[in-house]
Amino acid sequence: MQKDRTPKEWRLDFRSGTVRPTTGIAGGYAQANLLIVTGEYALDFASFCQRNPKPCPVLEMGSVGDPYTKLVADCADIRTDIPGYWVYCDGVLVDRVRDIESIWNDDLVWFLLGCSFGFEEALMANGVPVRHIQNKLNCPMYISNIDCLPSGPFCGKMVVSMRAIPGSLVARATVVTSRYSLSHGAPIWIGDPDGLGIEDLSSPDFGDAPVIEAGDVPVFWACGVTAQQVASNAKLPFSIGHAPGHMFITDIPNEQLALGRI
Amino acid sequence: MQKDRTPKEWRLDFRSGTVRPTTGIAGGYAQANLLIVTGEYALDFASFCQRNPKPCPVLEMGSVGDPYTKLVADCADIRTDIPGYWVYCDGVLVDRVRDIESIWNDDLVWFLLGCSFGFEEALMANGVPVRHIQNKLNCPMYISNIDCLPSGPFCGKMVVSMRAIPGSLVARATVVTSRYSLSHGAPIWIGDPDGLGIEDLSSPDFGDAPVIEAGDVPVFWACGVTAQQVASNAKLPFSIGHAPGHMFITDIPNEQLALGRI
Repeated sequence: MQKDRTPKEWRLDFRSGTVRPTTGIAGGYAQANLLIVTGEYALDFASFCQRNPKPCPVLEMGSVGDPYTKLVADCADIRTDIPGYWVYCDGVLVDRVRDIESIWNDDLVWFLLGCSFGFEEALMANGVPVRHIQNKLNCPMYISNIDCLPSGPFCGKMVVSMRAIPGSLVARATVVTSRYSLSHGAPIWIGDPDGLGIEDLSSPDFGDAPVIEAGDVPVFWACGVTAQQVASNAKLPFSIGHAPGHMFITDIPNEQLALGRI
Repeated sequence: MQKDRTPKEWRLDFRSGTVRPTTGIAGGYAQANLLIVTGEYALDFASFCQRNPKPCPVLEMGSVGDPYTKLVADCADIRTDIPGYWVYCDGVLVDRVRDIESIWNDDLVWFLLGCSFGFEEALMANGVPVRHIQNKLNCPMYISNIDCLPSGPFCGKMVVSMRAIPGSLVARATVVTSRYSLSHGAPIWIGDPDGLGIEDLSSPDFGDAPVIEAGDVPVFWACGVTAQQVASNAKLPFSIGHAPGHMFITDIPNEQLALGRI
């Protein structure tokens, strides 16, 4: 197994061309989802995130045309420091690339949104089993019946992730994750999937089928995939996201994110 | 003393022309600072708030040209439902009006930012004395030496508010206010004012001189006046704020704001 590196070392590795998922690397540091939109849609998307902070917690947003981070990392280059990018036209995936230097332009605005890796680390540190990690699977995700609050062209249902938690630990899982408001925070629903309009828990819309043990309760959190879904619904002429699982690795320790201030 | 009313009753009262400060009314409900900018500057100001969440916690922001609230109140009219507005040209105060219907236009974007009234209520409920309230004074505020993270034309020093707290209660004050991240959250500095570049605690830049009792420690929080200061520094061609002390009264209980999600 490759020795772990600092977030900066990983980002420079990606900048030099390495392509690999970021799951399980740079332990202890927050990772982030990427969405890049054109200036025309940036204010509406910023407002969408403000109105829907559970699925879309903004860790940092760029100024128009500026590709460099200032808060989550000192001068990381958003065009090269992520190990994979997906490019969309009219909401449809048209290209998968390892950097976006050649397609970057002065009208683009990037957003980095918190992801669930941080609170999963905290769950395990607090003795709460995370079934999909134990079984080396992807987390199951579902399109719920919860309407996001719309903003301009951005609208749609909230995507939720599900973790099956032993009944005795549901309270602990709730309290622990509530500390990580920039990593989706506390659950948005606990118990019967019907309440979220989910008919068949064994058939998620994204990720792998769940592993559920006797005595487990399904617990649902808001999910960052919501951002990609509403961007796709909006059929933006041009947008860019990270390749699934290929996230931006920040210099921010997850514990610092728990303080709600980066 | 006038009987207290619901937030909506107060807003309708202001809409019909009543002008009065909102200090001490609609108890238990969050109040908010207002800043309105033109579309050209809205994304940069949204980004400024994202980068400086302690002084500028966004409770809600409007879409371009839309004067109605959706989150903090059901369809309040930002043009009429605040009991006083100040109008600025090139960063200079040019008018004080009781509504802005006649100067509203389709290019304006409003921001409502959390204020400290909520955490002061929580401090008192937890047995921490708030000296300026006990003495019916305004809270002392200072321009600190902390640089805000800039965004476009928005930059400047952070304004801080000070409350003198008995040494035995400083820890309690810190923990209690840390729960209210949308109401400026935990202190940004505890103790020696020199550390913030404040030379004379008895001469605040805004508000009244502090009342400090034996054994008190000066405790400093980020302050929403920062937003007005950076907007003034930016010399925006046109902007509007609330009249000092004449805030927007939301339908959100302060306790709900403590959950970080509105």
